[in-house]
Formats: sequence, C-alpha cells, structure tokens
Amino acid sequence: MKHISSRDNPAYKRVLRLACGKRDETDDGGPSGHHAVLEGIHLCQSWLQHAGSPQLALFDSDRLQHNDEVAKLAQSVDARLCLSCEPRLMKSLSQVEHGQGVCFVVAVPLRSLPARIDHNSIWLDRIQDPGNVGTLLRTAAAADIRNAYLSQGCASAWSPKVLRSGQGAHFVMSIHEHVDLRHAQERVTVPLIATALENATSLYQSPLPPTAAWLLGNEGQGIDPALLALADRRVFIPQAENVESLNVAVAAGICLFEHRRQHTR
Amino acid sequence: MKHISSRDNPAYKRVLRLACGKRDETDDGGPSGHHAVLEGIHLCQSWLQHAGSPQLALFDSDRLQHNDEVAKLAQSVDARLCLSCEPRLMKSLSQVEHGQGVCFVVAVPLRSLPARIDHNSIWLDRIQDPGNVGTLLRTAAAADIRNAYLSQGCASAWSPKVLRSGQGAHFVMSIHEHVDLRHAQERVTVPLIATALENATSLYQSPLPPTAAWLLGNEGQGIDPALLALADRRVFIPQAENVESLNVAVAAGICLFEHRRQHTR
Repeated sequence: MKHISSRDNPAYKRVLRLACGKRDETDDGGPSGHHAVLEGIHLCQSWLQHAGSPQLALFDSDRLQHNDEVAKLAQSVDARLCLSCEPRLMKSLSQVEHGQGVCFVVAVPLRSLPARIDHNSIWLDRIQDPGNVGTLLRTAAAADIRNAYLSQGCASAWSPKVLRSGQGAHFVMSIHEHVDLRHAQERVTVPLIATALENATSLYQSPLPPTAAWLLGNEGQGIDPALLALADRRVFIPQAENVESLNVAVAAGICLFEHRRQHTR
Repeated sequence: MKHISSRDNPAYKRVLRLACGKRDETDDGGPSGHHAVLEGIHLCQSWLQHAGSPQLALFDSDRLQHNDEVAKLAQSVDARLCLSCEPRLMKSLSQVEHGQGVCFVVAVPLRSLPARIDHNSIWLDRIQDPGNVGTLLRTAAAADIRNAYLSQGCASAWSPKVLRSGQGAHFVMSIHEHVDLRHAQERVTVPLIATALENATSLYQSPLPPTAAWLLGNEGQGIDPALLALADRRVFIPQAENVESLNVAVAAGICLFEHRRQHTR
C-alpha cells in the first residue's frame, strides 16, 4: 500500500480539499457527478455494504497496524485504491475530535428529477441545520422511504455533518439536491402532505393515503407559503399547549411512522 | 443600569465561569440548588414566561440601544437585576457564533425524587449527546410529559447546548438529574416501558397503558441490561430492514406521540 508522509502529496491535497467541503477540481457539475469524503468506520462499512467500492481509501498508518476494525476495513477494499497516511496528516483531515483514522473518497450519485413522483418521499424546504437534514434522511430510511427532494437552501446533503447524522441513510436513498420544489410538485402524482401549524388538520383526524410526499419546512419559518399553497393536505401534530413546537426531524418521525403504522401489513 | 467594561468585574467573572459550564463558587450542591446561564432572546423570554425573574440579566450595551427585542426584554426585568455590558465582553460569554447579546443567570430548581412516580415520565439512561438530551426534553414537553429522570452519565441538563436544543422545555418540566434509575424503579407505580431492539414487541402490537414511564438508552449501547431487566414491557418501532436504527430523540417522539394518540381525548 502506498504511504503518504507529505502534505504536498497530490492525492492527499485533493482529499483535504474535499473534506473541507470544497468541490473537487474535476467536479464540473456535469453528468459524472461530484465527490464526497466519508469519515469513520461505520460510514465506510456502510458504503461498502450498500454502494460498493470507494474511489480512494485513506488509512491512518498507526491504526492500520494496531486497530483490527481498521485493518479489516482495509482488507475489504481493492489494495490499489488504498493509501496509508501519517497519523498527523490523517488528523488534519478529520472533521471530528476523535477520528477513527479512516476516510473514503466516493462518487456521489447524480440524480435527475423523475418524470413522475409516484413513490413515498420527503421534501425538505430550506432545512438549514446539518444535523436536522442528516436525521431526517436517517428517519426516512428507517421508515422505508427511499427518495428525498431537497430545495436550494438546505444544508448540503453530502457534507461531513449531514453524512454523520445520516448514519448511512445516504447510501440506500436517492437524494435529489437543489430541487425547485414547485417545479417538482408538477410531477407528483400522489398527495403532497405538508406539516404546518396553521390551517391544518390533526395528523390523526382522517386516514392517510397509502403513498404520500411529505413536505417539511425551515426550522424557524416553516414551509415557503407559495409552496405550502400547492400541498394537497396540511397536517399538524396535536401537542401540549404553551410549549415550543417539535424539532423538524422528530415531527417527521411522528408523521412518517404514523403513515407506516396505517399502511404496513 | 450598571455598566460593565472590565473583565475583572466580579459579576462578569461569575457569569463567565457559569457560561463555561463551571459551577458557581457558592453552589455547594445543597438545598439551594445551583445556577445556570441562559443565552438568547427566546430562552430568556421563555424563562420570564414560565419561571419568573432571573437572578441577574446581562445585556450587550449596543444591542440594548439598537435592537428592539433586546430592549423590550430588558424592560421586563427588574432594573436592579440588569447589567449592561461591553459588546466584546458579551461576545466572550457567548457559546454560539452569532450571539444575540442577552444572558440570564437563573437558579436551577433542585428536585428530590418523589416517593411515588405515578405520572407520565421519560427516563434517560446515559444519553450522552447534549443535542439528544435537549431534543428529548423538548419532545417530552410537547407530548405533555412533565417529568424527566436522568441517570448519571447523561449530558448535563442545564448546560448551554442542552438548554439550546431544549427550547424552553426545561422551564415547564421537573428535571431530575443524577438519578439512580434502578432505585427510582422501586418508586414507580405505572408500567415502565423500555425501547429496545431485542426481545421486544412492536409498539403497535397491544394497547399502551394510560400512564407510563418511558425508558430510553444510550446512543450506542442502549439501556443498561440490569435496568432493562426491570422494565415491565419492551417495545420496538417496526422499521425498514438493513438500515440504521432511529435516533433516540426521534424514537422517543414516535413512542410518546403514539401513547398520546391512544389516550388523548
């Protein structure tokens, strides 16, 4: 396995750029998609399980020798794609305090908007917090929803924080980013259900349709009114009075699993 | 209003210590309880609404002049408890990137374990992530649950991050920290329901009891086995296969609102 000991190594410099959230120099937004860095044993294992091979795998040279999980992970990747790396360089790459000494560079699948949106899906309108976007994806995947449509203004789905809180949901879902949700609404053939606090009926008031597109809005402002006007149904979760509304990912969990409760089996 | 322009001001030094998560010098763990710093307009407003007066209120002197919300907040507090503060000092206090220039010092209510736990409640076993603890409290408050029992090893409930994600839930709940949950189980007179992945039945399989104590466990390890053994019922949330389990706060939201759905009205 090739070893990297200099910051000036071109492969290392590329991964460092990507890990800091910068685009790859070769990422032109074209049909070949772009690249992302996955950090940590769990995310990398999950990628291998669901998506196949990374384009490149970097391992902390110390951990490679002394940590069985890391060594095992390295054995699962084609040796020609693996690089070992000085611990201090690996540390500079890491986005977390206690990194595990493993990074994959992967090609992010590029998704074009389907002609018909006739499946269960989540639609995220300007969800800004990376932890919320990641948890929303994780929650949707757990509810067996495999399609997510994210508007401009959402946290970048393949950024380190979103990947971390997504816990691998990214690799089993089709994630569409920078979607004009009003445009997408023209393609949806199942009810578009918005969560809203006003002019809405209780989630539990009448049966939910078997298939639905769930629209969730910005943490502070909710759903853009022009978009909300296009929803077929507005629901709220009946909660205690005089307390703050639910976190958006928790609210989504309650809706998606109520939907699942009504229509599974 | 008294103005602070020096880092050496004793009142300022005290707030700075507290804001960094250190205990007050006068906080001896005795019956008078301890102190916490609330940061931001929303949390401070919420304290005024639910809990009354702070012990001390600090305002950025610039914001006091130029921001209506901050000025209005200052008018809601007894002027003898208010201090204006140089912007640079206020910035050092802040735990967030874009502080709003408002901090309250408040007395944290000290709670002793009730002789009988016969109400709806959440029990948190070593939930480490501050965002999770805060979101759990926010979710419980929204579900009209007013009692939380936190084991040793949970993130500190009155730390800045937990307060921030709690969004004011702290002020409408009785939060018991450092609780020996096995000891508390001796006092519970309603079913103790644990969320668990193994040896559990579906949340939806049989009706939930009208009142329940909900036990939630550590993000990675789940509930301590010795504690889990004491639960009256173990439930799981039926989810898609081959994906990561739900985030603990989302899982709690699904359970608590299913409980609420079955028993409200």
